Amino acid sequence: MAAEGYEGVLVYFGCAGWLKRVYNKVEHEMIETVKMTKSVGRDSRRIIHSIKVALAITLASFFYYFKPLYDSFGASAIWAIITVIVVFEFSVGATIGKGLNRMIATILGGALGFGTHYLANLCGDKGQPLILGALVFVVAAIATFMRFFPSMKARYDYGLLIFILTFSMVAVSSYRDDEVLKLASDRFLTIVIGSFIAVSICIFVCPIWIGNDLHDQLVNNVENLATFLQEFGAQYFRSSQGVEQVNKASMHKYKTILTSKQSEESMANLARWEPGPRKFGFRHPWKQYLNISSSTRECAYRVRVLDVYLENNDQIQIESQFKEEFLRMCNESAKALKEVAMAIKKMAPPALASAHIERAKATTEHLSSLLANHRFVGLEMIPTATLVSLLIDLLCCIEKVADCTRELGCVANLRRGESLGAVVPAADQDLIHV
Amino acid sequence: MAAEGYEGVLVYFGCAGWLKRVYNKVEHEMIETVKMTKSVGRDSRRIIHSIKVALAITLASFFYYFKPLYDSFGASAIWAIITVIVVFEFSVGATIGKGLNRMIATILGGALGFGTHYLANLCGDKGQPLILGALVFVVAAIATFMRFFPSMKARYDYGLLIFILTFSMVAVSSYRDDEVLKLASDRFLTIVIGSFIAVSICIFVCPIWIGNDLHDQLVNNVENLATFLQEFGAQYFRSSQGVEQVNKASMHKYKTILTSKQSEESMANLARWEPGPRKFGFRHPWKQYLNISSSTRECAYRVRVLDVYLENNDQIQIESQFKEEFLRMCNESAKALKEVAMAIKKMAPPALASAHIERAKATTEHLSSLLANHRFVGLEMIPTATLVSLLIDLLCCIEKVADCTRELGCVANLRRGESLGAVVPAADQDLIHV
Repeated sequence: MAAEGYEGVLVYFGCAGWLKRVYNKVEHEMIETVKMTKSVGRDSRRIIHSIKVALAITLASFFYYFKPLYDSFGASAIWAIITVIVVFEFSVGATIGKGLNRMIATILGGALGFGTHYLANLCGDKGQPLILGALVFVVAAIATFMRFFPSMKARYDYGLLIFILTFSMVAVSSYRDDEVLKLASDRFLTIVIGSFIAVSICIFVCPIWIGNDLHDQLVNNVENLATFLQEFGAQYFRSSQGVEQVNKASMHKYKTILTSKQSEESMANLARWEPGPRKFGFRHPWKQYLNISSSTRECAYRVRVLDVYLENNDQIQIESQFKEEFLRMCNESAKALKEVAMAIKKMAPPALASAHIERAKATTEHLSSLLANHRFVGLEMIPTATLVSLLIDLLCCIEKVADCTRELGCVANLRRGESLGAVVPAADQDLIHV
Repeated sequence: MAAEGYEGVLVYFGCAGWLKRVYNKVEHEMIETVKMTKSVGRDSRRIIHSIKVALAITLASFFYYFKPLYDSFGASAIWAIITVIVVFEFSVGATIGKGLNRMIATILGGALGFGTHYLANLCGDKGQPLILGALVFVVAAIATFMRFFPSMKARYDYGLLIFILTFSMVAVSSYRDDEVLKLASDRFLTIVIGSFIAVSICIFVCPIWIGNDLHDQLVNNVENLATFLQEFGAQYFRSSQGVEQVNKASMHKYKTILTSKQSEESMANLARWEPGPRKFGFRHPWKQYLNISSSTRECAYRVRVLDVYLENNDQIQIESQFKEEFLRMCNESAKALKEVAMAIKKMAPPALASAHIERAKATTEHLSSLLANHRFVGLEMIPTATLVSLLIDLLCCIEKVADCTRELGCVANLRRGESLGAVVPAADQDLIHV
């Protein structure tokens, strides 16, 4: 009896312990989820996007709720709902791109599928599945292969997928269903309606233009590089009496630039679909943006090496006369970058950047002459010499960013002029005619 | 008459010129397309993938061609074809991930949709569309918001999309169609069949394991860094009598590493779905792979700065005694990297890499003592000092890559031991129980 009671107590405590562990785990998970939800929702555009999607789905489902609407499309109305859900993306560019891809691919795939059905019909009952199967095989293989073409992948990947889908659907189902033309046209019409709902809500309710996002990101990138140089100068080269608190977090914001290539390229690809938010023209020079993006990235590589170099060698001794020059170089470079950021923001050539770059170059020369006349003992010249080289190298990169920004400003001004009715320059005219 | 004839001649030549331009343009486009097709098809796996997709679609369309099969599913069979087309991806991991996502999301969305239908039914004819609309709105908004969670986005983004899709389809169409359970179960069954066809063909016909691709890419990345260092040494530091032809193209292959972060992370995400290609175990340490990937990228940033530094300063004069040491450093670093690449390939700790790294370090010290005792004139020490700093910094990064590879080798050995039936170490056992 006593032994049994003892076991019961053991089981009780075992269960209690297990329950406690489960409870703790659930509690921990819930706290984590709440934290995550808060951090995801901090960007209010995400909440707005979720509501917009729900709104679009609700609108599309009126095809079911209202009898007159339902009577004209019947069960095909489901394609409007599917289209809304699949096409609705975060940005206007992505939504328009997907919607157009889906509509054009549906009409092309449907037409080809109908043609295949017609051809197969000519071959009699026995030949029909063979012809259908063979044609579906060949078209699907070719279209799948075309998805690997880089030019297709960038903008028409979704369209090719939907082309294969619609073509196969129409061609294969035509074998059993004789109303294939009705099927294809209903599907197309409901897809057009669905795309229209998705695109309209995306554009007219708190639109998110990916072109603006890319624009802001480039500005931020250049500003982050400027911040790094300022804080870097303050941390290592400021004379000891005036030590300021360096903000490590804002100093290291440049790190995102190192790996931003793919995201910026896909943003530029999507931005091409946008009909042009008000502050930019229609034919926006996205190519120029990518040039700025890649030259900014080259700067970031240098900055990364600079950053880690001084982090690893924190007991470096640099003479105060050099420190002053280094500080001036960092500050002038940072000012040049800030000018560039401002110029990108305004889509204008960076007017004052070259003055700062020239001043930084003059400092370089002054530094060189100081170095040439200085007598170093042992290995102490290594850090100074390295810093000089890295900063000069960085300055070259900054100059390239400024050049790219100048080009962007010129092209943008030109386009702005055109859209105001100015004459198209001769070089561009040739391009239009050829 | 004469004037008319003259005009006719003008029109004729105008047309001829226009035709010729069109012809030239079409010819040019065709040549470009053929070139592009050849270059895309050079990777024969792409051609095989296209044929596999076509094969899977053909298999799925047998549901239409054979009457007994068609009779059991009817028009729902189209969902099998749609699923095959949508789920079939280039790699096994991506296909399994999409297939599982689609199946699980369909069953969850279908169940919730059916529950909503039941609930709405209780509210009478007038309340039904209101309840349906409200529930669809709320569920769609929440699920769309969840797609922004980073952990969801990485692996379950497609699942959430399909969840919204199926839920809306079942819930909304239940308003008009009373056979909603039949609709949901047919859709689920055909999706399972479609996923099964896609996954089987993807796995059993010339499978492309994305885990292998990631593995090979890491090995290539490290090898490309080694090649750069070798060629770099040969180009700048080899004594003039033995100048070899430097291969610029293979020297610059390292550039792809600079921007490989996103693609390698998504490869690791997809590889988690793979049931383990034969040469790796099941629970493969993909996290370790990403550590190697990011430390390799840090090396690449240094290499980029080195590369451009000497490209911009091609008239640099370095004394021959330093050149020899630099050459030795480059070669030892390159050898260490080659050892690391071999170790990643074999999933073993890099045994000989540390010996090469130690030798490179010894060279560094020798170089430092040479530098300390050398008398430089003017600014001539700058390039030598910069190269010393950059190469030492690079060596630190290479050491980190070697460390990460050692960890990978240890973890992989442990896992291999486990899968051969060895005892699970105590630390891991705790993890299993909690």
